[in-house]
Amino acid sequence: MNELVRDANAKGSLVERATDAVRDYIAANSLKVGDALPGEGRFAEELGVSRPVMREAFGALAALRVIDVANGRRARVGAIDGSVMAASIGHAVSTAQVSLADVWDVRRTLELRTAELAAHNRTEAQAEAILRAAHDLALSRDERSTTLADTAFHQTIALASGNELYFQIVRSFEQMMAVAIPKAWAGRQSPAARAETLELHRTVAEAIAAGDGSGARDAMDRHFDRSIDDIFAT
Amino acid sequence: MNELVRDANAKGSLVERATDAVRDYIAANSLKVGDALPGEGRFAEELGVSRPVMREAFGALAALRVIDVANGRRARVGAIDGSVMAASIGHAVSTAQVSLADVWDVRRTLELRTAELAAHNRTEAQAEAILRAAHDLALSRDERSTTLADTAFHQTIALASGNELYFQIVRSFEQMMAVAIPKAWAGRQSPAARAETLELHRTVAEAIAAGDGSGARDAMDRHFDRSIDDIFAT
Repeated sequence: MNELVRDANAKGSLVERATDAVRDYIAANSLKVGDALPGEGRFAEELGVSRPVMREAFGALAALRVIDVANGRRARVGAIDGSVMAASIGHAVSTAQVSLADVWDVRRTLELRTAELAAHNRTEAQAEAILRAAHDLALSRDERSTTLADTAFHQTIALASGNELYFQIVRSFEQMMAVAIPKAWAGRQSPAARAETLELHRTVAEAIAAGDGSGARDAMDRHFDRSIDDIFAT
Repeated sequence: MNELVRDANAKGSLVERATDAVRDYIAANSLKVGDALPGEGRFAEELGVSRPVMREAFGALAALRVIDVANGRRARVGAIDGSVMAASIGHAVSTAQVSLADVWDVRRTLELRTAELAAHNRTEAQAEAILRAAHDLALSRDERSTTLADTAFHQTIALASGNELYFQIVRSFEQMMAVAIPKAWAGRQSPAARAETLELHRTVAEAIAAGDGSGARDAMDRHFDRSIDDIFAT
């Protein structure tokens, strides 16, 4: 092993040790989202590592949204953010490691469950928001408002599941949906095809509002059947 | 807005622009995993940003495994890696944004589907590996070998689904399973409870080997029913 490689390995493991130390600090002090962290200098001193190593560790943790250093403020504990998973999935699709059909199968699997859970756990306000999104979708006449309403529909259902992890994973599909939704609607040329899709959204929303878990799941399943046909058949 | 904040915002958006430029470069050139990227200096010059900004962008992309700069080598296109999702989920659990029960519900939802898909898509070698993991589990007598066999069982099924995204998400649960599996097995005190769980693993494996999708799904469902009881009842 030459000197350069050994140095880089040693540095890599130092940065890893430094990021682990910040994670351990958060866990050991039971910190919550928004709580302030000691500065880079304090951690560097405590761990006996250089400032550049500590800066690199903070950078990696910020990229993973474990810490939040927005606006050059003091670092704080970060909130879970679907954008991290979105970056991973987006990269995998863009480099052909994962196909769009693969991502849609994962989406479908998760969203049958979020529809079912939402029927049991949604608040009154959430039930209204889901019905409203289905209604907005029926009224939308251009690509932008259709995409907004369709995205809001799926994300509000995931939020109403009462499980934040489903919500963040569903949010991570947002960028992909911004491309897929116009494509799916473009596949619904006839007024009948369009009406059928709107009816499926309304059926999901009404089943959730009525607290009918298996009805919501079944309607979501039919919706995905149709959408996957619309996207991958064209 | 004071000077410091403005500077930090401007820097933040510069780093964002720099990371976006690398992503765009990968997409525009249809690069695949392992392909080499131009160095930081080339990107910095091309984009008209400073080296430290470009270094920060490369650091963020490396943290997200979009690029791979291991061992101080030239940056290459990274492979999708469950560890990114694992970092996000682990942090959310450690800071009480997401409960362990939430994560288990997501696992269950995904793994009913991977069992079903594996029954249709597994190779002969994968079917053997899944049967072997179920067999190893029955033979294991200590915590470490039990955890290894149980993890291998679930990951091999996810891999055999033929959908890399399921495999990476299931891999992202590995660290959590290293804690949860010993707890679940500790809840199985009696030989009868232990035998029942082993039998459920074997039923899943045999259904997958037999190409029986709904049988595999049902057996996995019963397995999760029991495991969730064992973990959250104790």
